[in-house]
Amino acid sequence: MNNKYSIFETELTIRPDDIDMNNHVHNSKYLDYVLAARYDQMRKDYKVTMEDFLERGFTWVVSQVKINYKRALILTDKIIVRTQVEDFNRSQSIVNFEIVKKENGKVAAEGQFIYTMINIETGRPAKIPEDYIAKYTV
Amino acid sequence: MNNKYSIFETELTIRPDDIDMNNHVHNSKYLDYVLAARYDQMRKDYKVTMEDFLERGFTWVVSQVKINYKRALILTDKIIVRTQVEDFNRSQSIVNFEIVKKENGKVAAEGQFIYTMINIETGRPAKIPEDYIAKYTV
Amino acid sequence: MNNKYSIFETELTIRPDDIDMNNHVHNSKYLDYVLAARYDQMRKDYKVTMEDFLERGFTWVVSQVKINYKRALILTDKIIVRTQVEDFNRSQSIVNFEIVKKENGKVAAEGQFIYTMINIETGRPAKIPEDYIAKYTV
Amino acid sequence: MNNKYSIFETELTIRPDDIDMNNHVHNSKYLDYVLAARYDQMRKDYKVTMEDFLERGFTWVVSQVKINYKRALILTDKIIVRTQVEDFNRSQSIVNFEIVKKENGKVAAEGQFIYTMINIETGRPAKIPEDYIAKYTV
Repeated sequence: MNNKYSIFETELTIRPDDIDMNNHVHNSKYLDYVLAARYDQMRKDYKVTMEDFLERGFTWVVSQVKINYKRALILTDKIIVRTQVEDFNRSQSIVNFEIVKKENGKVAAEGQFIYTMINIETGRPAKIPEDYIAKYTV
Repeated sequence: MNNKYSIFETELTIRPDDIDMNNHVHNSKYLDYVLAARYDQMRKDYKVTMEDFLERGFTWVVSQVKINYKRALILTDKIIVRTQVEDFNRSQSIVNFEIVKKENGKVAAEGQFIYTMINIETGRPAKIPEDYIAKYTV
Repeated sequence: MNNKYSIFETELTIRPDDIDMNNHVHNSKYLDYVLAARYDQMRKDYKVTMEDFLERGFTWVVSQVKINYKRALILTDKIIVRTQVEDFNRSQSIVNFEIVKKENGKVAAEGQFIYTMINIETGRPAKIPEDYIAKYTV
Repeated sequence: MNNKYSIFETELTIRPDDIDMNNHVHNSKYLDYVLAARYDQMRKDYKVTMEDFLERGFTWVVSQVKINYKRALILTDKIIVRTQVEDFNRSQSIVNFEIVKKENGKVAAEGQFIYTMINIETGRPAKIPEDYIAKYTV
């Protein structure tokens, strides 16, 4: 996490279908938790929802994920997902995240997503409009 | 299964992410296996793919599922999913299925799906065209 | 739903990874929502958790599901999952459910699960102890 | 990929439930594909299965994932997942992967997993036995 931009939080509940044969949250579900948090924070914190992007002809795809798993999560854990903009470049948004256990604040996983904004019509990366960047660099 | 219409088969491989905390295939994944088999059989057996429906402005939604779980499936099981048309009515297709273990032919689950054909533009159920019924009642 | 036993409720949030190519909640996820609600209600309403069963050497498996899909769910829907005991027999528990949209109370899906209690050591169905039935028939 | 150790391949079929609201394979499913390939290759190529580890009291957890998404995958794509040992250290195994489209060999995603071997009894990282390393550094 940096000290340039706001850190936002979303509390999530683990579902039984997230648990795998090791009795822990399955590794790929962590990515789904970050996605769920991001959608939630777009709506409640950034005030620009995914629907707003779609209406202007844009969508977002994931270009890169780095994730470090620190502690296993179990079904009864409550979790908080924090995300924060690290930086923007032409068509990409770099977002830091951490997933912490609500009970003790310990980090279960942390990492970074790079998202690319796509022009739906052309299917090509698009320059992120300045008004969006303004709303996301709070 | 009835003796009116053909029974078609698709062999599927169980993935580690299908396994749940009980070390068995998770109960809801059985529905995904039937869906995967249906897509495969539309292409290879009925010769009318989901894309064909979409191009003519139709899609299919699930209206009802009944499933009886008979035997647990584990990661190393190979499975065969058999499906068969039971009947058509105006906008619905009733499809029987069974999931069997390849090794011994024992039934892991069996049941029935009712699918409804939807006119994409109106979002309402649509009368299934006769030429589709002809291709599906083989 | 019957008028013999209590109806309990759990509110759930739809995640983006629950949405399928039709832009609706994927059909098999409804089963996962019922499972999540059941775990939650075992803890908060029945006061006998899954862990309690496991500690006494029992687990539960799904033996049958019937589900009628009434209305599509989309990402921004808030949902409430209601479940209710329909009946018990020797080793089985029959549970009614409905998934409703929080906004307008309309039913998105309703149906029934049959669960079988298993003796973990033998892997065979076990007679449900009377003290459990007492706690579940409230 | 390096030129020290063997590259092994597993062909996988995309399932309809892997597709998300963008009509592409959902980003977290790529991790599940690599896991499925790894299990398959442990059995068919390395000749040391996950069950062998479990029987000796060990399991593997994911400690880090880096993945670059290069091209979207759609339902009708056939994919090949290649994995290769990059290196071992005390309790960790570093594995490179790439997911390619079977039709044209183009890379859909590539990256690296770090797995940590755990002593099931203690829950702590364990030194990987030399006989395992020998079988995995082919």
